[in-house]
Amino acid sequence: MRISELSRRSGVPSATIKFYLREGLLPAGRATAATQAEYSEAHLRRLRLIRALIGVRGLTVNATREVLNAVCEYEADIHQVLGLVLGARPVGEAVRSDDGPGAPDVNALVAHMGWQISEYAPARRVIAETLESLRSLGADFDWRTLIPYAQLARQTAVLDLDQLRDTDDLVERAERAVLLTVLLEPALLALRRMAQEHESALRHGT
Amino acid sequence: MRISELSRRSGVPSATIKFYLREGLLPAGRATAATQAEYSEAHLRRLRLIRALIGVRGLTVNATREVLNAVCEYEADIHQVLGLVLGARPVGEAVRSDDGPGAPDVNALVAHMGWQISEYAPARRVIAETLESLRSLGADFDWRTLIPYAQLARQTAVLDLDQLRDTDDLVERAERAVLLTVLLEPALLALRRMAQEHESALRHGT
Repeated sequence: MRISELSRRSGVPSATIKFYLREGLLPAGRATAATQAEYSEAHLRRLRLIRALIGVRGLTVNATREVLNAVCEYEADIHQVLGLVLGARPVGEAVRSDDGPGAPDVNALVAHMGWQISEYAPARRVIAETLESLRSLGADFDWRTLIPYAQLARQTAVLDLDQLRDTDDLVERAERAVLLTVLLEPALLALRRMAQEHESALRHGT
Repeated sequence: MRISELSRRSGVPSATIKFYLREGLLPAGRATAATQAEYSEAHLRRLRLIRALIGVRGLTVNATREVLNAVCEYEADIHQVLGLVLGARPVGEAVRSDDGPGAPDVNALVAHMGWQISEYAPARRVIAETLESLRSLGADFDWRTLIPYAQLARQTAVLDLDQLRDTDDLVERAERAVLLTVLLEPALLALRRMAQEHESALRHGT
């Protein structure tokens, strides 16, 4: 297909596609004339993944390039690829997240759940900071209080991974993983707020 | 207690407490001398709620004043109070969230779940926007796909409300509701990311 059709089918403007080509995020098309190139379905899938990483996950162009390179490197390993696109595994410089304040609590939670979690996963730090905040505000809440929440998160993750079963193409699956994980985040919090309102009505409503 | 003790026990600096007094968020203490006043446990509880609304929920001073006034008005009605402090019910100007693009899908989801949700709940709009985004990006995802997620959100809300059972004091319960709801949000998303990593390792790991 020509760049105009690639633009139409991806929803990404031609000027942006040209920028991605110059930046080396998208490989060049097959030249068919001095100023024309032909693009494939593989270009389309890769373009969609680029859009998800930049537009939805908010990565920089450089970080996106690193993720895409690593996706190619781990081509056959969907687990590595998902870890990369979702940020569980670091690209480039690695910062350990399993020490520092609050980290022992997170380690205890992860061990209790029997989870295999990278020591670099930024999620570890987020949970440690939440527990610290609640403690500093005097709330009676520790890692054990998080156990039932973690069990529900586990079930949510099963739903998430089920959503990725429909496609065998690795790049498409990576794109879908980014969309579903990142875009669903505000909706999942909104569902919790609505469910709280309903549960409160059941318990205390008139 | 004196203002210095109120500061120590709440963790809020004296200068900030004086600001809240001037702004009418915190009622004046009982004057014991020309420049001294005595504060009660009720002041402490109210101060903690103010801190949660401003510092954790990020409300402005004016919005906090409106919420506090409404909390007093609905004193006996914990459901109304929770709705107010968590933002399910509007304070002041009300904006309906049950029409506009995507709203019919949210109405369908709410009806399917059998939930009682205010037509002003901002969460409605968040879910409508998420569904629109996923649709515009070509993801095969509609309100029916959200049903199992909503069921898990329901279970999360039950845990949340259970955390509020320990106290009978309304103001204390309102503060705890804000802390647990807002501060837990990033942690719940982080738990999902970790659970995804684990689930991915189980399905695809070597």
